[in-house]
Amino acid sequence: MNLDPNTDLTFTRRLKVPRALVWKCWTTPEHIRNFFVPRPHTIEACDIDLRVGGRFNTTMNVDGNRMENKGVYLEIIDGARLVFTDTYGEGWKPAADPFMTAILDLSDDDDGGTIYTATARHRSPEACKRHEDMGFFGGWGTVVTQLEEYAQSLG
Amino acid sequence: MNLDPNTDLTFTRRLKVPRALVWKCWTTPEHIRNFFVPRPHTIEACDIDLRVGGRFNTTMNVDGNRMENKGVYLEIIDGARLVFTDTYGEGWKPAADPFMTAILDLSDDDDGGTIYTATARHRSPEACKRHEDMGFFGGWGTVVTQLEEYAQSLG
Repeated sequence: MNLDPNTDLTFTRRLKVPRALVWKCWTTPEHIRNFFVPRPHTIEACDIDLRVGGRFNTTMNVDGNRMENKGVYLEIIDGARLVFTDTYGEGWKPAADPFMTAILDLSDDDDGGTIYTATARHRSPEACKRHEDMGFFGGWGTVVTQLEEYAQSLG
Repeated sequence: MNLDPNTDLTFTRRLKVPRALVWKCWTTPEHIRNFFVPRPHTIEACDIDLRVGGRFNTTMNVDGNRMENKGVYLEIIDGARLVFTDTYGEGWKPAADPFMTAILDLSDDDDGGTIYTATARHRSPEACKRHEDMGFFGGWGTVVTQLEEYAQSLG
């Protein structure tokens, strides 16, 4: 994957939970609700059809405001890669003004944990900059920390 | 698939060639060159990586002008469905200004031929209208006629 620093944001973290568990958390609605937005924001609903072109819809509650996020999965490599985006709705319906495409890559760490790389790709440098200014690194970083803690509590 | 007449263009044709052959023609570069643009325009190059997220690139020669079209496959159901778009480049790189998403659905006709449905989905009514005004029905229709004749010559 040839990333472009002008349009792509990415970071890598080492998590103290096995890859299969990270995958399960990321692909199961009841788990998603426990880490997917930085607290105190919450996920009110999550609807997943885990196949290429299938829906990945979430409803967030941010300071009392309900925000619907609709998207689809573009690529699913079991336990290793999950790609999703708001660029399409179900049935490959193109969104009028898509924002980003998210790529999660998981691999085994030496200590039994997971090497976790999250990437957000954008259509323009402006969209990328806006995402960074919205707090991409802090927000997605917090989500990973919450995911790690939640996954450990399941173990 | 819930189509929207404001943003989607679609038509269905019955072809006198079996589905497996239609599929082979649509997914093999050497065949693509023989039908993919209305004559006298030609395809100078075609580069295919037939997997989800893989490239579907073509170079057309239109009245002496070379036009590069880059895209990827979104969904591949062997012999039955092919979805591709200029919305992404390889590695799920979002295009700055994507135009359309193409969906080909093939099913068996009673007479041993193929029921062929081609659909183009767009981000906006304006893009859809532009595509129709560019001659979507005539152009894609001619391509299907060329495909049918070419496939028959292989049989």
